[in-house]
Amino acid sequence: MMDCRVVVCIAGVMLAAAGPAPRDVPAHAVPVPLTASPQLQALIEKPLNPLHAQVPADAAGWKRQVSDAANSILKTYPGMEQRLHVSVRRVVIAGVPCFELTPASVPPRNRHRLLIHIHGGAYVLYPGESAIGEAILMAGIGHFRVISIDYRMPPDHPFPAAMDDADAVWRAVVHEHDPANMAVFGTSTGGGMTLLLVQRARAEHLPLPAAIAPGTPWADLSDTGDTLFANAQLDNVLVTDDGWLDAAARLYARGNDLKDPRLSPIYGDFAGFPPTILTSGTRDLFLSNTVRVQRKLHQAGVEAELQVFEGMSHAQYQFDDRVPETQEAFGQIAGFFDRHLGK
Amino acid sequence: MMDCRVVVCIAGVMLAAAGPAPRDVPAHAVPVPLTASPQLQALIEKPLNPLHAQVPADAAGWKRQVSDAANSILKTYPGMEQRLHVSVRRVVIAGVPCFELTPASVPPRNRHRLLIHIHGGAYVLYPGESAIGEAILMAGIGHFRVISIDYRMPPDHPFPAAMDDADAVWRAVVHEHDPANMAVFGTSTGGGMTLLLVQRARAEHLPLPAAIAPGTPWADLSDTGDTLFANAQLDNVLVTDDGWLDAAARLYARGNDLKDPRLSPIYGDFAGFPPTILTSGTRDLFLSNTVRVQRKLHQAGVEAELQVFEGMSHAQYQFDDRVPETQEAFGQIAGFFDRHLGK
Repeated sequence: MMDCRVVVCIAGVMLAAAGPAPRDVPAHAVPVPLTASPQLQALIEKPLNPLHAQVPADAAGWKRQVSDAANSILKTYPGMEQRLHVSVRRVVIAGVPCFELTPASVPPRNRHRLLIHIHGGAYVLYPGESAIGEAILMAGIGHFRVISIDYRMPPDHPFPAAMDDADAVWRAVVHEHDPANMAVFGTSTGGGMTLLLVQRARAEHLPLPAAIAPGTPWADLSDTGDTLFANAQLDNVLVTDDGWLDAAARLYARGNDLKDPRLSPIYGDFAGFPPTILTSGTRDLFLSNTVRVQRKLHQAGVEAELQVFEGMSHAQYQFDDRVPETQEAFGQIAGFFDRHLGK
Repeated sequence: MMDCRVVVCIAGVMLAAAGPAPRDVPAHAVPVPLTASPQLQALIEKPLNPLHAQVPADAAGWKRQVSDAANSILKTYPGMEQRLHVSVRRVVIAGVPCFELTPASVPPRNRHRLLIHIHGGAYVLYPGESAIGEAILMAGIGHFRVISIDYRMPPDHPFPAAMDDADAVWRAVVHEHDPANMAVFGTSTGGGMTLLLVQRARAEHLPLPAAIAPGTPWADLSDTGDTLFANAQLDNVLVTDDGWLDAAARLYARGNDLKDPRLSPIYGDFAGFPPTILTSGTRDLFLSNTVRVQRKLHQAGVEAELQVFEGMSHAQYQFDDRVPETQEAFGQIAGFFDRHLGK
């Protein structure tokens, strides 16, 4: 048994040595870019998110972490709802709890349009109302009605519960709304799930949305992507791929291969996808996830716009409506939906 | 006098201390991304370009360096012309030497279309035929006729000779061709000059091209941009902004402020720009230049597509037609031109 392990280890080392050599980057300082807005500069300057090093030891530990994160973010929503004039109510669709977000005024072009939001949080954070931040931004800045899906999550409900819930909601809403007037969007895990939902809907012969906006999508749960390494310790939101984030991936995947296309849509098929707009930042740990998805879409002949913000770490465009880059990011997405959705 | 310097120095330190704190990134290794094509992996794996540390001492030194670089790159062109079936001839337009590139077969949709190419090289490299690599790729992959401008460069001809030549050619060609059927493209310095040309043509009330493709444009010659720091020693083409590149900027600028909008188009006005497609890579020192231009264009309400390639350093998409990412990059640009140019 011991001998066998040694052979495996040596083979691993030999394989690594035979592959291309990595680039050794010396220690360096990266100043806050003064061409970002002052509000974004304040986000860029924040210390590294300590979460990346805080891997819970058990289910109870995960639940405490989830509860703390939810309580912290929930405080930011009432102000955002007021400033953006968005009202929120709970609804249940196909047995799945959801939130319906309605802007105070819906322009005529958006009267018959509906967006579906899938929240982020590494498949474990942001249950219930703590998930709706990005949906408030989209409803308020884009003046769309939005349904946000409160899908089930681990530790109680691992793979594939989250996608089963998203799929059930999609299956229900396309019976009541014209999919030509609908788009799906979400950031990080929500971006990955947006891609998975299209692949699954296509496989199940359901109608597809008219457009999608996966923001910095977690399209690959395995340790793959240039900026996972290049932007480690520079992205102050995710910080590193091999700590908390990897633990969250494994908590959700429950022993399944992280490259299974039902977990990592980058390994699935992008043929027939609707027009897509992607969002990322120059410091984003998932910039590679984002651009790899763009390349797959282009290879499939799909329109795939990309917007990348200077100095921005993972998902920072959806933190605060008072950041000009947030207004611009959702403004671009709203314009993209306007060009591609029916009325 | 000494006291005065000390005060200035102290004031500088205080200012720096009062500004936002930089991010300290520890030394780390970045593996070659195995999801890039094998051909691109070979480019990514190459050692850092030694040029970044070789600043010539005088005009004769610059000329030797220019000559060496030209002789080296010229060897790669005959094979590329043969593989892509592109023929090249010298022409003179408005007194400016140019190259006319013609693909063996021009499809009907491109019969009345003409592209103008402005080469890169930090305003000093690639005189004469050594500049036409990207023009060969565009002609061969996109099946367009291309005029490549052999503009004057320092040390003999500093600012604004290069832009005077580009402007003279544009002024001449719009008299003979319908600008609705024309686009302008170029990479790095050629991308910056493409932006400058639009700003200058607009100021001179000349017609604008129907579309432009500035690739990883040198839109800011000053030491400004997040990825100048984040991707230093990772980008194996430019390597760092503060060595050879800064010296080349100053050689061209001849004492003018590097933030003068006639040198750095990012500080100019983007209103009324034609639809634009931008190209960069995740390791590109100029990724920030690229995304800052996209943001300026979006703020001006201009369509601005962006394609970013996994693991790619500065301008590596234009090195070799046998790299699949090169075919994809120019394929996307050709498709963009096809959508925006008249016939």
